[in-house]
Amino acid sequence: MWRDLSPLGRHADSGGYRRYAWTGADAECRAWFEDQAAARGLACEVDRNGNQWAWLGDPAASDAVVTGSHLDSVPDGGAFDGPLGVVSSFAALDELRRRGARFAKPLAIVNFGDEEGARFGLACVGSRLTAGRLTAEQARRLTDGDGVTLPQAMEAAGFDPDAIGPDPERLARIGAFVELHVEQGRALDLTGDAVGVASAIWPHGRWRFDFRGEANHAGTTRLADRRDPMLSYAETVLAARREARLAGAVATFGKIAVEPNGVNAIPSLVRGWLDSRAADQQTLDTVVSSVEKAARDAAAEHGVDLDVVRESFTPVVEFDHALRDELARILGRDARLTAPVLGTGAGHDAGILSESVPTAMLFVRNPTGVSHSPAEFAAEDDCAAGVLALADVLEGLACP
Amino acid sequence: MWRDLSPLGRHADSGGYRRYAWTGADAECRAWFEDQAAARGLACEVDRNGNQWAWLGDPAASDAVVTGSHLDSVPDGGAFDGPLGVVSSFAALDELRRRGARFAKPLAIVNFGDEEGARFGLACVGSRLTAGRLTAEQARRLTDGDGVTLPQAMEAAGFDPDAIGPDPERLARIGAFVELHVEQGRALDLTGDAVGVASAIWPHGRWRFDFRGEANHAGTTRLADRRDPMLSYAETVLAARREARLAGAVATFGKIAVEPNGVNAIPSLVRGWLDSRAADQQTLDTVVSSVEKAARDAAAEHGVDLDVVRESFTPVVEFDHALRDELARILGRDARLTAPVLGTGAGHDAGILSESVPTAMLFVRNPTGVSHSPAEFAAEDDCAAGVLALADVLEGLACP
Repeated sequence: MWRDLSPLGRHADSGGYRRYAWTGADAECRAWFEDQAAARGLACEVDRNGNQWAWLGDPAASDAVVTGSHLDSVPDGGAFDGPLGVVSSFAALDELRRRGARFAKPLAIVNFGDEEGARFGLACVGSRLTAGRLTAEQARRLTDGDGVTLPQAMEAAGFDPDAIGPDPERLARIGAFVELHVEQGRALDLTGDAVGVASAIWPHGRWRFDFRGEANHAGTTRLADRRDPMLSYAETVLAARREARLAGAVATFGKIAVEPNGVNAIPSLVRGWLDSRAADQQTLDTVVSSVEKAARDAAAEHGVDLDVVRESFTPVVEFDHALRDELARILGRDARLTAPVLGTGAGHDAGILSESVPTAMLFVRNPTGVSHSPAEFAAEDDCAAGVLALADVLEGLACP
Repeated sequence: MWRDLSPLGRHADSGGYRRYAWTGADAECRAWFEDQAAARGLACEVDRNGNQWAWLGDPAASDAVVTGSHLDSVPDGGAFDGPLGVVSSFAALDELRRRGARFAKPLAIVNFGDEEGARFGLACVGSRLTAGRLTAEQARRLTDGDGVTLPQAMEAAGFDPDAIGPDPERLARIGAFVELHVEQGRALDLTGDAVGVASAIWPHGRWRFDFRGEANHAGTTRLADRRDPMLSYAETVLAARREARLAGAVATFGKIAVEPNGVNAIPSLVRGWLDSRAADQQTLDTVVSSVEKAARDAAAEHGVDLDVVRESFTPVVEFDHALRDELARILGRDARLTAPVLGTGAGHDAGILSESVPTAMLFVRNPTGVSHSPAEFAAEDDCAAGVLALADVLEGLACP
């Protein structure tokens, strides 16, 4: 499976993946998914929001057990974030067939569309739409960096943008959803386990900081006459690191846009995006308000105007406790596995679905913790342990 | 003249000018120049490097008096930087004809190509090539942000890129070059004069700082595991301001490129450009080496690699003392003008030519000091005083 999937959407120079929603690379990944489903005799369908489903058993029956993840990527992302969950789903089905498992419930493998939000700036668009966490009207206003709207992009890819919207009937037929994902930190590496079970997803959000100063000549404008927004931005970047460290949270300025962005021009605008996450809501609020205060002080010092806009926010997600305990019980029967329970700072489709459906996650060890990078890695043995754990879980849930 | 010129290459949203070398806006400005020359019976020619010349008298004769500037702009630049010198040249000729001046020497008005370097990253390409300060081979390697080379851009605009190169015969026929330019600081505003004479151009250079860290997930990577180049960049931006202030120089980080530039990704690369200038070489060296040291310390602190590359450098330019004294003598005869002598931090075609030809500059007051911005401004009375001063100078030099 990996052999066919790994070249798709890979950038020759960076070695990273550029699988963005509704692009050619995305279409290639979708075709790969259809081929994998067909090779296993699964019935493939695309829902109204562009998510792909491969069914074993009757899709119209209730209490289905669903697993899967996503195939799209961040800019120059790694090979595992997303695809590992989809590949492991098919591999777990193969393992269960080898075991001669008899399924009492329908089983589906899903590929959620546009999880990373690399193109339209909003993560988990496919699962958000399905769960009613994003309205069709909101989705239709999403625009990529070239000014292409989501409906235009869907249409260009051969999908019907008029059909998008909530899908409660589909969700109502799902008894449990389990997403396997490569860990994006080093918690399992530090405990020495190949596989873990998720407890919760940290609350997190994105804030846009617009520092507006005055464009001017970099050679002739006296320092005292400047209103340079780059200086306020720089002080804010350092404040974010300081406040996150004090609070035991994370805070990152990873994206910036500068106008006019000329070597010999003082900028008129520096726009920076803050991504921050913490174990609980109160800590996150403290970090972000402290960073904003530091930014306002720095802006005032340099005669710069500041607007701060919260672009997205996801509250803490506690995964279904009963399902989590069930997973621990199932995995506890397999002497080959120990699976600690751990929290995570990353958002996932599973987090979106958790409000509508009993949901759980499995993590596979990431020895470096590196993710969203071509250097992202998981050892073959750990991936195999992930498949084994997922097969155990699916068997426990669907073959009682 | 302004009425025809001012709409060309103007961006509807910003109100700033985007007149980049060898683009459609550039062609429109060149056509405007030809029309102005034709309306005054001047013979228009384009030299091998794409600079436009409008001649009164025999271009082949020696000891020509040349004036002019450039029509291209920085991204979202103002209306005066460049065009004021060209418009004032035509207006000064009109004034001299009103006075009934009799020219003993050939007079030329020049529009130098690609002064700002907005497209290919190197300033004064037209004058550099002509003066032999940039070889044809170096120029042919210049590439714009879309990967278009300078020869490709010239060819697309209908010019012959094979012809570019030094033009010593042309320079040898020039007896004096005088460039009028809007001031890009507030020195004349502070002295209360409409027009000034340039003494020197500060030494200046551009340095590229490449901070290389490790791309990683902004939500799940512990602060202690990060190698975030944005932090080192931010500390360097603040160090540049501090060192410039201590030295009485200027230093600016106005351009940045970030990879992958995603909201939820720690950057792998932050590339920042430092523009720094000072009144003398030693001061400039001190500023830049102090900024570089601060950058290396910050990079080491965050586990980030740093490369610093000097992309361009222009030593101090002392304008021809004899010509400067001649200008002061000529302007001293006009009771309507007082013209102090001042230095400047901005580079100009006049600075490039000053090694080959006796060269001088006139500055027109800029009441705010703002330049390289849509808000760049000069009062109508001051522009008229500039035309008067330039007419006096051309008459003094060409009609003895």
